[in-house]
Amino acid sequence: MSTTPNSSNPTSPRTRVVREPQRAVYDRHAINQILDEGFVCHVGFAVSEPGKDGQPYVIPTSYGRDGDILYIHGSAASRMLRNLNQGVPVCITVTLLDGLVLARSVFNHSMNYRSVVILGTATLVADPAEKLAALRALSEHIIPGRWDDSRQPNERELKQTSVLRVPIDEFSAKVRVGPAIDDEEDYAFPTWAGVIPLEMKVGSAIRDERCEQDLPEYLKNYSRNK
Amino acid sequence: MSTTPNSSNPTSPRTRVVREPQRAVYDRHAINQILDEGFVCHVGFAVSEPGKDGQPYVIPTSYGRDGDILYIHGSAASRMLRNLNQGVPVCITVTLLDGLVLARSVFNHSMNYRSVVILGTATLVADPAEKLAALRALSEHIIPGRWDDSRQPNERELKQTSVLRVPIDEFSAKVRVGPAIDDEEDYAFPTWAGVIPLEMKVGSAIRDERCEQDLPEYLKNYSRNK
Repeated sequence: MSTTPNSSNPTSPRTRVVREPQRAVYDRHAINQILDEGFVCHVGFAVSEPGKDGQPYVIPTSYGRDGDILYIHGSAASRMLRNLNQGVPVCITVTLLDGLVLARSVFNHSMNYRSVVILGTATLVADPAEKLAALRALSEHIIPGRWDDSRQPNERELKQTSVLRVPIDEFSAKVRVGPAIDDEEDYAFPTWAGVIPLEMKVGSAIRDERCEQDLPEYLKNYSRNK
Repeated sequence: MSTTPNSSNPTSPRTRVVREPQRAVYDRHAINQILDEGFVCHVGFAVSEPGKDGQPYVIPTSYGRDGDILYIHGSAASRMLRNLNQGVPVCITVTLLDGLVLARSVFNHSMNYRSVVILGTATLVADPAEKLAALRALSEHIIPGRWDDSRQPNERELKQTSVLRVPIDEFSAKVRVGPAIDDEEDYAFPTWAGVIPLEMKVGSAIRDERCEQDLPEYLKNYSRNK
């Protein structure tokens, strides 16, 4: 793999990668792969305070993707929902960590990672059919097959749940892969150099005390390598 | 372990946990443990646009802690640095994912996680001694022992690197542990229920092609279980 991901063009000046532009990825297919592998996103939004710049908040939450739309649970961002009548500017970031990169110099240490940044306006999903489809997308994003094997949401639960919709229109990704890159004169420095891989590992399923069911097929080989 | 973490009091109304308040943790020692286990934080800041609410940005970056101060690389947030003369309001969030929680009902599905949210004002570290100590904290946060075994930063590299300082004064954490909690009438629903553990796994170190050094002691049993 190369340390230079294939780049096309930024979707907007706001999502142009400024630092380390050689790591930029603007390709929708590549972005979708990163989104589909992540478990949680970090949602950023600003809350205005009198006489001050907006105070940013960053909240981790689960998400789902349906084509070019990202859905998140509104419940995870209750402070955000106060101002939601007209839609709220958000930034949604998904980060996958792949390794620690140990160079000879402190300065050239790095991490291997894949991250996506989406800028957009979050709006409340009002249509009941879209809401149900969005909740299904949120569930299937985490564990494909789980939705149909669970007790479906009832009216009361649907009312308690709010879902936000963010179009994936303005986005970019940054990707670093590969070995440490040192300044040429540092290669003689006598220290270990290389990469320590990191991976989100799925452990063995722990059955609930009050459950007697066998593990279903869709959980037997569950992993995030899609 | 209980699903009710030990709570004390929020450090400010802005960091009071609104949703699922039974998951709130306001204890500094517990927050530090979460911070020390994470690899990356997500930094949120808002960039004002004429006639509009601030556009939030959320950027993943590494960090270090020195007592009650969090340090981040300024280079990771170049957009933020434009306005940094007077300090920039930020939100710094660290999230550790511990498991997927599969309930009988779709509605009661959840995740086990530990997350910290810090609100504060980021300021540029100007003092050279503090800057060097902060860079050391950033390095030691990821791999204790690595700083002294690497080629130290020179004047040119220090000039290229900016470091931001955020006091850990206004913070909260949310923690969910334990099994699925279903509505009583759902326990009879015929589906598998339980927890799928997740863990950030450290893989076997991959030595650089141009390195002939043996793996040092501080990397031999490297893990995040501090």
